[in-house]
Amino acid sequence: MNPPVALDLAAVLVFAVSGALVASRAQLDIVGFVFIACLTAVGGGTVRDVLLNRHPVFWLDAPSYMFVATLASIIVFFSAHLLEHRYQVLLWIDALALSVAVSAGIAAAQSMDEPTYIVLLMGVITGCMGGLMRDVVCNEVPLALKTGEIYVTAALAGAIASVVMAELHPSPWLPLVACTVVCFLLRGGSLAFG
Amino acid sequence: MNPPVALDLAAVLVFAVSGALVASRAQLDIVGFVFIACLTAVGGGTVRDVLLNRHPVFWLDAPSYMFVATLASIIVFFSAHLLEHRYQVLLWIDALALSVAVSAGIAAAQSMDEPTYIVLLMGVITGCMGGLMRDVVCNEVPLALKTGEIYVTAALAGAIASVVMAELHPSPWLPLVACTVVCFLLRGGSLAFG
Amino acid sequence: MNPPVALDLAAVLVFAVSGALVASRAQLDIVGFVFIACLTAVGGGTVRDVLLNRHPVFWLDAPSYMFVATLASIIVFFSAHLLEHRYQVLLWIDALALSVAVSAGIAAAQSMDEPTYIVLLMGVITGCMGGLMRDVVCNEVPLALKTGEIYVTAALAGAIASVVMAELHPSPWLPLVACTVVCFLLRGGSLAFG
Repeated sequence: MNPPVALDLAAVLVFAVSGALVASRAQLDIVGFVFIACLTAVGGGTVRDVLLNRHPVFWLDAPSYMFVATLASIIVFFSAHLLEHRYQVLLWIDALALSVAVSAGIAAAQSMDEPTYIVLLMGVITGCMGGLMRDVVCNEVPLALKTGEIYVTAALAGAIASVVMAELHPSPWLPLVACTVVCFLLRGGSLAFG
Repeated sequence: MNPPVALDLAAVLVFAVSGALVASRAQLDIVGFVFIACLTAVGGGTVRDVLLNRHPVFWLDAPSYMFVATLASIIVFFSAHLLEHRYQVLLWIDALALSVAVSAGIAAAQSMDEPTYIVLLMGVITGCMGGLMRDVVCNEVPLALKTGEIYVTAALAGAIASVVMAELHPSPWLPLVACTVVCFLLRGGSLAFG
Repeated sequence: MNPPVALDLAAVLVFAVSGALVASRAQLDIVGFVFIACLTAVGGGTVRDVLLNRHPVFWLDAPSYMFVATLASIIVFFSAHLLEHRYQVLLWIDALALSVAVSAGIAAAQSMDEPTYIVLLMGVITGCMGGLMRDVVCNEVPLALKTGEIYVTAALAGAIASVVMAELHPSPWLPLVACTVVCFLLRGGSLAFG
């Protein structure tokens, strides 16, 4: 798999879990879980693809994305009650999803040879929009906008790390790994010590 | 009229009425009625067309869609106070709108020769997104996500009924009628006995 | 600069300030200010461009839009506490942003030779959607939908003024100035005397 496809798939998986956890907090039924999970999973990447006029939109290109998101949300539906600290788990899963999705956004924009500032913006948009839709639809205060949290900043820092690393060491994967690590360290640090 | 156009027009009409009824609950003025009615009426089909890169977006292709939605919302504005059980009427109109819009989404996706899983997804998206936008903007709990309601499930069941019927009996209209009937029976059953 | 570019830039600037003022009411940090400001600033024009299949979306065409929005929101971040009547200022800035953005939407649609009713709709959409996104994401009652306020009506009246003026006196700027003035007078009148 090339980087955009692999990263989109990974972001879909982790964001779907985060969406299902929010659905669990909202006490939705199993179809509500699947719906919110899918919306969260593909929301950010869809906004990115529509903005970049990149058709077909990634999850319309293969059924695997929706399949993965649906399966993940069903597993969460039957296991979420086992979690003791559901909101804590949600925060950390969301942090992981953010970090992977920023990389996915960057990989997709780079595959279209977009200029650097668009690559950075698409990283932030892909990372933040899915979770924002999830929170707006479920009527929660968007995690991306909570006071005192490092969220959009973490996404932007990860995106910048990726672009800098790509200058230093051209490789298909290393800059994207750098992006994910930097974003997760910042966002996770904000969760752990914030 | 070919099926996509006729069904889009019917969905626009019924969803506009549902949007105007929500506007009436929110005590908006006449322009607010028209605005919410138009947003609800074309929201789902617009998401579908943008995702499928189907341009022009259906309601930009002819002025009749906006005209119908505007007229319907004005009629509701001057008659909504006559309704005794406004929320009950809203629920049933929304159920009808959902059922017609799922068919409209399916017809549009089929007219572009999309594979089956995309046809199903577009049915669900066209059916659910307009009402979701309406409820989010008016700050109501989305009907599609209320616990214990059969909503997205009804949309998906209708979509599957349409695809199965199209295998059994290829015709331009019969599968779409099957879709609307199955979706409305399930959603209506949930309202009547849920 | 041709009218669409100049007006988009002006609308981005004023809407960014309005977004930053809402962020200030929501007590967000500086990154939240920039995020909401950018969302508000480009939201309406983005919906317009995606609907019209007008690529690249205006703010992806040059970095100046995001730069202006970011700079404006940072200035508001460091000065908003100096304002005595922040909500009043927000209302008037939003009225100005609406008026300029309606013109921007009209200019963009006209540059694509769209028919009159689409030109009118794009004016209203460009004017109203950015503020609507801002208010939905920040969980405020949308200004566009507040009872007793002239808002969407002002946008539509401005759009009509522009089209009428273009018939009377073809010029690249005069109809757009007429649009902004009519829209602002109506919206401002509603604020001052409503």
